[in-house]
Amino acid sequence: MDDKKERLQKQMDFILEADKIKKVTRQTYLSDGSRKENDAEHSWHLALMCGLLAEYANEKIDVGKTMLMVLIHDMVEIDAGDTYAYDTSGNATKREREVKAAERIFHLLPEDQEKLLRNLWEEFEASKTPEARFALALDKIQPVLLNDASGGVSWKEHQVRLSQILNRNQKTPEGSEDLWEYAKGLIDKNVKNGNIQTE
Amino acid sequence: MDDKKERLQKQMDFILEADKIKKVTRQTYLSDGSRKENDAEHSWHLALMCGLLAEYANEKIDVGKTMLMVLIHDMVEIDAGDTYAYDTSGNATKREREVKAAERIFHLLPEDQEKLLRNLWEEFEASKTPEARFALALDKIQPVLLNDASGGVSWKEHQVRLSQILNRNQKTPEGSEDLWEYAKGLIDKNVKNGNIQTE
Repeated sequence: MDDKKERLQKQMDFILEADKIKKVTRQTYLSDGSRKENDAEHSWHLALMCGLLAEYANEKIDVGKTMLMVLIHDMVEIDAGDTYAYDTSGNATKREREVKAAERIFHLLPEDQEKLLRNLWEEFEASKTPEARFALALDKIQPVLLNDASGGVSWKEHQVRLSQILNRNQKTPEGSEDLWEYAKGLIDKNVKNGNIQTE
Repeated sequence: MDDKKERLQKQMDFILEADKIKKVTRQTYLSDGSRKENDAEHSWHLALMCGLLAEYANEKIDVGKTMLMVLIHDMVEIDAGDTYAYDTSGNATKREREVKAAERIFHLLPEDQEKLLRNLWEEFEASKTPEARFALALDKIQPVLLNDASGGVSWKEHQVRLSQILNRNQKTPEGSEDLWEYAKGLIDKNVKNGNIQTE
């Protein structure tokens, strides 16, 4: 196989492997509450939000780069699974499981793109650039939108407390003050109507 | 409500409406053949392909623009439904149903973004720019990848003929000769093993 064919084959192998995130189920329900969403749907939603809401990023961001970042930010969950936000023991081993997954999955790609995606994923995880901070804000706000729309079904199912949500969202305002303001309004509403517990 | 809040509310209304494409089922199965994929998963897959395969576009493309194009290219199916590629009567009324859907759905957005997305969708449909031609090629090639991986389950289910596939792919090489070459290899393989009919 010549170099060009080998390169394309590696890219296609990765693209086919990526198909598996359609089977990684999250704890967030669709807006109509009919079923839980999966990582591919969630990532699609974040990329769309990125395209439409970039004006609310605290700092100027490279939109195309941030889109690719959110498109691949959950790819490691093919091997590591989705660790629910409020699962303490799962979160203790999350990083180790995810790094191992990143090593296997991104390695399917040609070397330059392996580096590109691995670096994008690490950048997202470290949350130290404007793009990563905004991507993280979207990743935290999207489930709030869906939870509110579905009548808080996932919050109620897991008896989630306000302190847990606020703790999980400590970095959200660093990506976007405006979007956090909006999300806080939805959270307050769901505290008032009892979908989110305060004790 | 002040202008800024009204703008964000419109954007959020659209983002929540968009959630519905997670429930629009396509005829293509996931690579493991376990179930059919939906429009959100399909659009996520195309955006990822766009980020990784842009080097194979016949003409230089704006990757960020093409990503947003594929992220929203099926949004009209929230109202119009997915019209199966080889459904002749469905395809006769497709354009009319989809234009009506585009008018309602994109109108949820603030005017500038309504125009942006409506234009991107029309650009995709017309297939006359490098970005639209490449997006169309991805849209046609992704189901070939999945069909091949799943053992041709959708081709067999619908007794799809080679002439139908080639007819549907007339414009694919205009987006990417290289990717069409790759897809043709998969199609040939599936003709040989009987998953695609020739008469």
